[in-house]
Amino acid sequence: MPPKPLDYGSINENVKKSQYAVRGELYLRASELQKEGKKIIFTNVGNPHALGQRPLTFPRQVVALCQAPFLLDDPNVGLLFPADAIARAKHYLSLTSGGLGAYSDSRGLPGIRKEIAEFILKRDGYPSDPELIYLTDGASKGVMQILNTIIRGQDDGILVPVPQYPLYSATIALLGGTLVPYYLEETANWGLDVNELRKSVEQARFRGITVKAMVIINPGNPTGQCVSEANLREILQFCYQENLALLGDEVYQQNIYQDERPFISSKKVLMDLGPPISKEVQLISFHSVSKGYYGECGQRGGYFEMTNIPPETVDEIYKVASISLSPNVPAQIFMGVMINPLKPGDISYDQFVRESNGILESLRRRARIMTDGFNSCRNVVCNFTEGAMYSFPQIRLPPRAIDAAKQAGKVADVFYCLKLLEATGISTVPGSGFGQKEGVFHLRTTILPAEEDMPAIMDSFKKFNDEFMEQYEDNRGYSRL
Amino acid sequence: MPPKPLDYGSINENVKKSQYAVRGELYLRASELQKEGKKIIFTNVGNPHALGQRPLTFPRQVVALCQAPFLLDDPNVGLLFPADAIARAKHYLSLTSGGLGAYSDSRGLPGIRKEIAEFILKRDGYPSDPELIYLTDGASKGVMQILNTIIRGQDDGILVPVPQYPLYSATIALLGGTLVPYYLEETANWGLDVNELRKSVEQARFRGITVKAMVIINPGNPTGQCVSEANLREILQFCYQENLALLGDEVYQQNIYQDERPFISSKKVLMDLGPPISKEVQLISFHSVSKGYYGECGQRGGYFEMTNIPPETVDEIYKVASISLSPNVPAQIFMGVMINPLKPGDISYDQFVRESNGILESLRRRARIMTDGFNSCRNVVCNFTEGAMYSFPQIRLPPRAIDAAKQAGKVADVFYCLKLLEATGISTVPGSGFGQKEGVFHLRTTILPAEEDMPAIMDSFKKFNDEFMEQYEDNRGYSRL
Repeated sequence: MPPKPLDYGSINENVKKSQYAVRGELYLRASELQKEGKKIIFTNVGNPHALGQRPLTFPRQVVALCQAPFLLDDPNVGLLFPADAIARAKHYLSLTSGGLGAYSDSRGLPGIRKEIAEFILKRDGYPSDPELIYLTDGASKGVMQILNTIIRGQDDGILVPVPQYPLYSATIALLGGTLVPYYLEETANWGLDVNELRKSVEQARFRGITVKAMVIINPGNPTGQCVSEANLREILQFCYQENLALLGDEVYQQNIYQDERPFISSKKVLMDLGPPISKEVQLISFHSVSKGYYGECGQRGGYFEMTNIPPETVDEIYKVASISLSPNVPAQIFMGVMINPLKPGDISYDQFVRESNGILESLRRRARIMTDGFNSCRNVVCNFTEGAMYSFPQIRLPPRAIDAAKQAGKVADVFYCLKLLEATGISTVPGSGFGQKEGVFHLRTTILPAEEDMPAIMDSFKKFNDEFMEQYEDNRGYSRL
Repeated sequence: MPPKPLDYGSINENVKKSQYAVRGELYLRASELQKEGKKIIFTNVGNPHALGQRPLTFPRQVVALCQAPFLLDDPNVGLLFPADAIARAKHYLSLTSGGLGAYSDSRGLPGIRKEIAEFILKRDGYPSDPELIYLTDGASKGVMQILNTIIRGQDDGILVPVPQYPLYSATIALLGGTLVPYYLEETANWGLDVNELRKSVEQARFRGITVKAMVIINPGNPTGQCVSEANLREILQFCYQENLALLGDEVYQQNIYQDERPFISSKKVLMDLGPPISKEVQLISFHSVSKGYYGECGQRGGYFEMTNIPPETVDEIYKVASISLSPNVPAQIFMGVMINPLKPGDISYDQFVRESNGILESLRRRARIMTDGFNSCRNVVCNFTEGAMYSFPQIRLPPRAIDAAKQAGKVADVFYCLKLLEATGISTVPGSGFGQKEGVFHLRTTILPAEEDMPAIMDSFKKFNDEFMEQYEDNRGYSRL
């Protein structure tokens, strides 16, 4: 019998090459253990509601009313919903053409895109054009669409930070392009050095790669650093000099846990630079309802804003978006509420502030507990989580542990994370899934477990780690930078 | 200045090649006219709620409660929601891990997938494995993922009906594969002739194409035919002989407007055939919440079921689904309610039946009104819409009209549809967007305008058409099969 079209040997090789560790071997093993009855703490993916974060009340009220618009005519609606949620629901329904059950324009509802443009103007101090804002089913889908527009084949390269969120490596592999890595400097709190960038581009060009775009993740995933304004300026100047488009992954812009470096958008820094740079560098910025204090991952809502993209290309992006007809409409409403929050004086304002501040303040405390917890462990060093939702400690493994991993046919950090999972139920992602320098090992965990559970989790981690280090202790030192 | 990465000349050629007429030139022009204040009847896309179809009450109540779970603790909840909606909402929330705001497994919620498997068992009489059912953000996303798994490059061909829904041609172009057309026979009510299939495959192979899969759309889009059991049997035997995977687009399975040929699934016919065929032919079947009497397009919910796909390939499909983390969870709940409807005796049952039957019976009447309306027009012939949501009349154009179109730089049916739009506000899609035999012209319209508006719309169409034919009348006859 000849092989069939969907036999493993017959399918698209790029599909096979694509790797996505966040739901990889560790996650699959954790899911198995859970089925067997073991208690698993899923810290593999930034999924706050799955770890007990309660949704914000007001946006949920608004979307529930949009889903059940017949309630708006019910005389009892005021018993269950506040007047401002009712007014908002009516407002958003008036922006649709047939409620949440009708496809919107493939770019999203024009009214919501207009409100996003107003949000960007307020945030950055520069106007934004609603025609250049496209809503998507989560930011990931937007990133995939833009990379698909850029990448023509294996000679097209995309500069991606290492460590990186594997959406980038997976999508580039799926599209048959080439990932051009640039390393973040762990000892400089995961800072970005433009000389390092330049070196990466030169090496890639030497190999015949046309480097077309650069990705920055700010705040960083998995690395948690906040990029400074000065650094963003250098990056944009570099993109201008090297003729690169910039993809700014800014989905964690509300997740900031220190005061020295507030979030600043790539768009603002680009505009601040003035012409010619502000008119020339092609920038796509991504945002999401899945992160921030919303954490509405399951709704799948995001948008991207295009700057300096010529109209003919914008039309092509519109056309391709149209093939899947419309991003889901409920998440467009969440995006609307997120970028146009309640104001002082609104009936639900106090509750909204209490809920959202509660979440952000607790995340800030958890970032601290986790960093300190890791740094108290034998052979573990960890930068502070300045932003985003992750901790990315370096695990300095003794050579005997690395040998044992090799014997087990595993990468050393996969070996460590599997042992951690079996011993404690903590489901993390090995650093090798994000990329790291040769011979150095990490893991990524979210800072999302409930605050009251955090001390016990860190104790359990420390107990496992210190025993592991004890077991594999070695007089030959350990892996490190 | 060298071209920049997102300048039109620099981007992915496959993006440019991909065409999607449903939101193409006609739709863009209609949107412009609407902005200028003209009343437009959008029949370009099967979007029932946009044309006034009211959502079914029960599923909306369930999803609203899932979005606002705090209502379940409110003593007044019973004033606004019936007990069966409350019970269902609690049931679905118990299937999530953190409500609608948490990512589900990338394949969808296990509990919903189990209920879909039960629905398929009940529908077909054959068991279905929940592990082989993946939920998606609408059926289109599922089709795109499967085609991406199959297509390796331009030498891989996919057999697609002509006329076809342009999701297929657009996606195959985007993925750099080759569309291998097979023609449906208009004079045999858009029937499918296996000899025609065989000829298409032979011709493609002669050109060096490896034909890997065949698409059927049943009921047909844009053609509205229901495929008979005997025909499905022939198709599956053909796929077996020719080593083709079958992609069964069955999103219109609830939209049936005649009694002679009820919907029958490809899966059932495959299983009925018995071994070896039932064990060998690789089949992927697609379904959606956007069609049927739900018409919940804006929610973006769908699923696909895989039959005879080896586990290693299933794992690859799972991995790629994981890159975008999770289909949206609210639409998974809609799918759950859709495939597990209310039963006699449930509090909301009578209302549910009244609403859903009302929609289906009206669609059946509209299918008839539209077919008869088209057939009463000069030089227009139209098969009856047996199923789905579209009417696809053949417009027999006089040579003078074809010449005038050429002069205007337009394909003849685009010319006709643009004139129709300007004259009447009816926004259709030219047949050339779906494919048609050389020298024959069609348009596609949905049968979705409100029933009470239908006579006026058909009058307006007839007036335009008959004047158009009068204007371009010609003693040289007209285009036809």
